[in-house]
Amino acid sequence: MSSIKTLAVIGATGAVGRIVLEQLESRRLPIERFVFLSSKRSAGTKLHFMGQTYQVGLLEPNAFAGIDLAIATTPDEVAVEFMPWARAAGTIVIDESAAHRMLPDVPLVIPEVNAHAIARHRGIIASPNCSTTQLVVALKPLHDFGQVKRVVVTTYQATSGAGSAGRDELAYGLRASVNGSAFHPQTFPYPIANNLIPQIGSLKDQGYTSEELKLIYETRKILEDDSIQVGPTCVRVPVPNVHCESVVVQTEREITPEKARELFANFPGITVWDDVPNKLYPMPINVDGRDDVVVGRIRKDLSDSNSLAFWCVSDNLRKGAATNAVQIAEVLLSQMPATCGT
Amino acid sequence: MSSIKTLAVIGATGAVGRIVLEQLESRRLPIERFVFLSSKRSAGTKLHFMGQTYQVGLLEPNAFAGIDLAIATTPDEVAVEFMPWARAAGTIVIDESAAHRMLPDVPLVIPEVNAHAIARHRGIIASPNCSTTQLVVALKPLHDFGQVKRVVVTTYQATSGAGSAGRDELAYGLRASVNGSAFHPQTFPYPIANNLIPQIGSLKDQGYTSEELKLIYETRKILEDDSIQVGPTCVRVPVPNVHCESVVVQTEREITPEKARELFANFPGITVWDDVPNKLYPMPINVDGRDDVVVGRIRKDLSDSNSLAFWCVSDNLRKGAATNAVQIAEVLLSQMPATCGT
Repeated sequence: MSSIKTLAVIGATGAVGRIVLEQLESRRLPIERFVFLSSKRSAGTKLHFMGQTYQVGLLEPNAFAGIDLAIATTPDEVAVEFMPWARAAGTIVIDESAAHRMLPDVPLVIPEVNAHAIARHRGIIASPNCSTTQLVVALKPLHDFGQVKRVVVTTYQATSGAGSAGRDELAYGLRASVNGSAFHPQTFPYPIANNLIPQIGSLKDQGYTSEELKLIYETRKILEDDSIQVGPTCVRVPVPNVHCESVVVQTEREITPEKARELFANFPGITVWDDVPNKLYPMPINVDGRDDVVVGRIRKDLSDSNSLAFWCVSDNLRKGAATNAVQIAEVLLSQMPATCGT
Repeated sequence: MSSIKTLAVIGATGAVGRIVLEQLESRRLPIERFVFLSSKRSAGTKLHFMGQTYQVGLLEPNAFAGIDLAIATTPDEVAVEFMPWARAAGTIVIDESAAHRMLPDVPLVIPEVNAHAIARHRGIIASPNCSTTQLVVALKPLHDFGQVKRVVVTTYQATSGAGSAGRDELAYGLRASVNGSAFHPQTFPYPIANNLIPQIGSLKDQGYTSEELKLIYETRKILEDDSIQVGPTCVRVPVPNVHCESVVVQTEREITPEKARELFANFPGITVWDDVPNKLYPMPINVDGRDDVVVGRIRKDLSDSNSLAFWCVSDNLRKGAATNAVQIAEVLLSQMPATCGT
């Protein structure tokens, strides 16, 4: 591939897809032509983008002809189905799904952390799971300084992590609760309004869910260090958007809270809000709509002298998904030779 | 004191007080006379108890005359004020507040864990903080078997932990959110509806809040082991009632998940719900109204070979407060000499 002129967004009408469009509009990537694709349910929809109206095309075998790069925000099974079509057309795919993340020849990328990995792609670049991305952005400066040995992470994951359907189900459930009417969940296994569900994804190995195992394996792959031990617990909470994580990190070299604040503040993509007396800390309501990872409650873990505790918050639809994918596209475009005359 | 014939409930009209009354009705303690006391705001209120109507008396210096035992569910500052009045009258006080918990001559008691400590009281027996109680009930059988070394605990605390006002504020906030109307929080520092607040209580030492430090110091006192290291994070969640905790425990002697399930199941006051494939785990909606501690998601912590992870859920108004206080009264009564002829 000598240049990238045409970019497709696959799943453009979904919760993440809509933010991919926003990001593409605001970040002004040097792309000549945009194409929008969706499954049957949404194909034919009209959408507005950069002042024009586009019709969403159908994601089908020949849909990739002439498309240089695609950002795909589809479920795993859809990604598995369309990837051969993309490969046949020579389209590079930035894949938000989990389907290809752990394949050895697929870079799993957070640009602030491992942009260098993009160069070795062979057609697919994966974007990590939302809960992994914000964790690893926060871990990276600590790892560089002090070598992360062990991470205990407990999540508070918003309903939008299950897409528009999840977000809607919370809204319907809250309305039913306020009105005293009956409500039957469809997206989550139990009502999520006024509740917490300590299961995200299906049960896999050793009592851990698929969501929890992603935090282990994706973290190691992105930080390129299989010695990092991760103990995850993932919980769905009745919040529409923005994931929070309580993190305890043990490092080889001690990191004081003061040093950690400095490391976080100097790292691209991290903002520190850490002033409890003035009630300053990240929360869903003040991080919603931001593209960075916001860290607060930075303190020594009182149970281990080489451990640090902090509270890590990010908009799961943005840095956890859409923003990260568009940032990968930016890096990819910056690595391409200039298009003029080639 | 030769016998306990008269029991007072102080703060009888509050969120915890109402459940103390329920517990007293259902547990049928051998008490001859009940008295109900409250601060000025609620004194004079009528309440129904065991088929009779009582008028709530005023909590004032001479209110303790003739009262053998009191269960007090007041804020700290109220407990500090009335305790000399109770002492002067010879009234034993089971105190739900935090005001006296850490005093050396005040036993801090969870009957299933350290009922023996009640015997050395000198007028005050303290009931632990809600988030401590459920944690320590779950830790006790693990500690007895394998010696707890380190605990990392992250809480999901319901709004009722801040009393009726907290619970009401969530309800009002949710109604405002559903109706699209404005809402200004009064009990919590930020709106709690659709949000998470990573601060409970005020900031104390080393970046920890008062609520977090209780988890450290109360745990050590109840388990009578100052070597136990605790790393706490306390977070308020938009759930009306029932606290959840994600717990990772390192023990001296390895405890397999199978062994832990057995230890939990055989311990009084613990119920195990742990079958993820069948979506069985404790949550606020299925633990609300129960008097026990329910444990699920029991598994090896994948980040440390001597650590176990689990999810611990309890009704913070019941076992976390009212039920525990009434259980302390039951033990105290059972330790008294028979009243006949003495």
